[in-house]
Amino acid sequence: MANKQKPNRPKARLPRGFVDREAGDIRAVEAMCAKIKQVYELYGFDPVETPLFEYTDALGKFLPDSDRPNEGVFSLTDDDEQWLSLRYDLTAPLARHVAQNINDIQLPYRTYRAGYVFRNEKPGPGRFRQFMQFDADTVGAPNVTADAEMCMMMADTMEALGIRRGDYVVRVNNRKVLDGVMEAIGVEDAGQKLAVLRAIDKLDKFGPEGVALLLGEGRWEGGKKGEGDFAKGAGLDAGQTQIVLEVLRIKLLPNPLGLGFATSNWPITKDPDNDLFEAGLQELSFMMSMFKSSEYDENRIRIDLSCVRGLEYYTGPVYECELLFDVTNEKGETVQFGSVAGGGRYDGLVERFTGQTVPATGFSIGVSRLMTALKNLGKLDTQSVPAPVVVCVMDRDADSLGRYQRMVQTLRSAGIRAELFQGNPKQFGKQLQYADRRGSAVAVIQGGDERAAGQVTLKDLIAGREAAKDIHDRADWVEQRPAQVSVPETSLVAEVRKILAQYEG
Amino acid sequence: MANKQKPNRPKARLPRGFVDREAGDIRAVEAMCAKIKQVYELYGFDPVETPLFEYTDALGKFLPDSDRPNEGVFSLTDDDEQWLSLRYDLTAPLARHVAQNINDIQLPYRTYRAGYVFRNEKPGPGRFRQFMQFDADTVGAPNVTADAEMCMMMADTMEALGIRRGDYVVRVNNRKVLDGVMEAIGVEDAGQKLAVLRAIDKLDKFGPEGVALLLGEGRWEGGKKGEGDFAKGAGLDAGQTQIVLEVLRIKLLPNPLGLGFATSNWPITKDPDNDLFEAGLQELSFMMSMFKSSEYDENRIRIDLSCVRGLEYYTGPVYECELLFDVTNEKGETVQFGSVAGGGRYDGLVERFTGQTVPATGFSIGVSRLMTALKNLGKLDTQSVPAPVVVCVMDRDADSLGRYQRMVQTLRSAGIRAELFQGNPKQFGKQLQYADRRGSAVAVIQGGDERAAGQVTLKDLIAGREAAKDIHDRADWVEQRPAQVSVPETSLVAEVRKILAQYEG
Repeated sequence: MANKQKPNRPKARLPRGFVDREAGDIRAVEAMCAKIKQVYELYGFDPVETPLFEYTDALGKFLPDSDRPNEGVFSLTDDDEQWLSLRYDLTAPLARHVAQNINDIQLPYRTYRAGYVFRNEKPGPGRFRQFMQFDADTVGAPNVTADAEMCMMMADTMEALGIRRGDYVVRVNNRKVLDGVMEAIGVEDAGQKLAVLRAIDKLDKFGPEGVALLLGEGRWEGGKKGEGDFAKGAGLDAGQTQIVLEVLRIKLLPNPLGLGFATSNWPITKDPDNDLFEAGLQELSFMMSMFKSSEYDENRIRIDLSCVRGLEYYTGPVYECELLFDVTNEKGETVQFGSVAGGGRYDGLVERFTGQTVPATGFSIGVSRLMTALKNLGKLDTQSVPAPVVVCVMDRDADSLGRYQRMVQTLRSAGIRAELFQGNPKQFGKQLQYADRRGSAVAVIQGGDERAAGQVTLKDLIAGREAAKDIHDRADWVEQRPAQVSVPETSLVAEVRKILAQYEG
Repeated sequence: MANKQKPNRPKARLPRGFVDREAGDIRAVEAMCAKIKQVYELYGFDPVETPLFEYTDALGKFLPDSDRPNEGVFSLTDDDEQWLSLRYDLTAPLARHVAQNINDIQLPYRTYRAGYVFRNEKPGPGRFRQFMQFDADTVGAPNVTADAEMCMMMADTMEALGIRRGDYVVRVNNRKVLDGVMEAIGVEDAGQKLAVLRAIDKLDKFGPEGVALLLGEGRWEGGKKGEGDFAKGAGLDAGQTQIVLEVLRIKLLPNPLGLGFATSNWPITKDPDNDLFEAGLQELSFMMSMFKSSEYDENRIRIDLSCVRGLEYYTGPVYECELLFDVTNEKGETVQFGSVAGGGRYDGLVERFTGQTVPATGFSIGVSRLMTALKNLGKLDTQSVPAPVVVCVMDRDADSLGRYQRMVQTLRSAGIRAELFQGNPKQFGKQLQYADRRGSAVAVIQGGDERAAGQVTLKDLIAGREAAKDIHDRADWVEQRPAQVSVPETSLVAEVRKILAQYEG
């Protein structure tokens, strides 16, 4: 380190997919998370936090192979040769926490948590290997009233963040509906199931005709034969495809009796006649009644049988919050902003550990994505913290520096952000340049003569910047000394406040 | 997962040295960090955050051997075979951040950050493998005025947290002083240097006689020959030992001129006559002048030449904040609480990357340790968030549940934390038990008859708990129906507020 000839200096760089965060971004996320937290607390949720590491087997989904333990997660072996992983979401660690403390936790257990999660994947635009999620879960809640509450909390959260009604919608489905249909039409192969779900997921994008192609043989990218790439379909026959499409057309009605389910277009031609399917529709219908009683209409929360959430562990209702306003994507196309939060019921995750069913439901907000959305809407609270007043260093003896430092302390004691210039004080111009670039409104200057007279100079840097625009000649500038006043040192605080007051609000 | 006979269920447990954090703890740390942040912001510091991973070579201190890359840090290889590590402190990543962005950052750069750091070490009582640090640094600050400011900020932070003057002290030393003394007396071996520093560090505990033994041959644990274990000394001869002890006796005086240094007992018998030593004393003397001008007296910030900070990379002033009140340690002995924060000047850390000196100074607060201290002092802000009002579920049809849910929403809209009971509603007693264990003040109950009458029952659970203490007979209890009122549903919010108001503050 001391040897300046040392040839192999490390390069200052970050691993791919990781980023540093600056003050504006940090403050905006803090303000956003504070608002989300306020909604969750009002709903009776309390914070709980788990560490970033878990035993890999406790995380469950990604068990490491001996050769390639890092598939999707960051994993390493501990000194006792057990595999540890960094959490890839906040749900699996919560399930572990509940299972570990099942005798001490009062169920139903309503909790929230914000924290970083890690994915050992190839990063891309807007895709990071460390990112923040903000989750809320109710564990020990067997009934869909808990899922309904989650959907309402999602909607309330969006509105608390300033997203207008109509700019968001919470889409709700039930895993049982699609699983039941697939059971009814005899789709059993895991790969084929996935292909069916993926096809259904495209309803918004390609319409029923496009979905029909994707459920069957496949679909050409451009919509017509030979245009673009060919996406191989799920391989359903015409009868199977028709049943799936009819199910997607079902319009549910709220069912105030909570028995059976009601639709506006039932019976459909091809009834899947499947218990799981009917249970799913019944749950959705019940949830609709809950939304209706609490006056969350279809513009805020909507049943949508084409809503597919990817995670395997969902066992009942799934829900996601989509933002509906248009943005331009990286290809230059105008698209809806899309999903910022999603979740569902996962009745099996605690059972993995304990063998006892502990029903649970919850969702996760993608914090960075939501922040980008708020930025697009001009709703991001950038919490402008005023830049500090800078006290300049003119004389460099200990006595003078002590006096400058005391001025700083006096300003701070009055609640004014302030700092002594801590760089190399030899060039006075650099000090003003620093204060200027920092965005400071005031520089405090005191040379020997002023000190003797008990005076101090306050430079209004914002007015100075404005004035400087009209001044092209240096001599002219020196002459005018724009936006600068000499005041008694004893009224430092009052005079600084006067200048700051001009730029507040 | 579905197969209940599955024999190898994962055990729900956390890796050693990691902990889950509960609501009270999370809220207390948040409140504490908010106060610290407020002080730092007032001092002109802005937040900046780095990710948890860095390239191992960028972290510097712990370069992995090929065999054992995990010495002290958690490390793994990325898919391009480069070593990544989880940060072990917040200073090394800041140095990397500054070096990487040196052309964009306006120096001096005042920043703060709180975050988790990781040590791959054997955990012990109060020693975790993931813990939080809260750092502040000024990068690009060549003069000890910046170090002096850090010491004052430490003191202000303690007072902002409610720690009284006299219960804390900031001890200040300068690495140059002890390095200069060792240079003067010819101690060059790294191991011997460390032994000398460790001996000096024991001045508070063993006094000058004990330190003399540790500087020389060694010291018996019990103070007398043969008592307890023998701690081998640094092996200095009598002359060398005398010089070190005399240096430790130096009492510095503030030096208003900022030239040379002043002591109350100078010249000492054996002047080390060393430039580094004298430069160190001069810097300390200068810092004292700064403290004096800003009226930080010896009860708050104190020069202490026996203050040894362990990290190798310090190049000038070092400082730590100690809490002086007594606590009982794990051996049952009464000891001072000790250090909660420490730091110093590290002029070489950015240079490691760039080759250009970028002088810097900063310190780190151990967040958990400080929290423990505040708990001991009864100064921990536990931010009591009231437990939510629980609306019970009597009838379970969709219409009734919708009505209960609407009551919850009505309370929430009025800003009252509230929740619908989301557990299995079959046993009413379990619902009240839940509300009671949750610490709720009010349970809201509405059966069919009440609904028909437009009434709702509010149960004051806190009064109920009090009353129950005097009731031993169940029949008696049913008779008295303590702390329960029936009110019109239309005045739900007002009546709930009335009960809550009794328990506020």
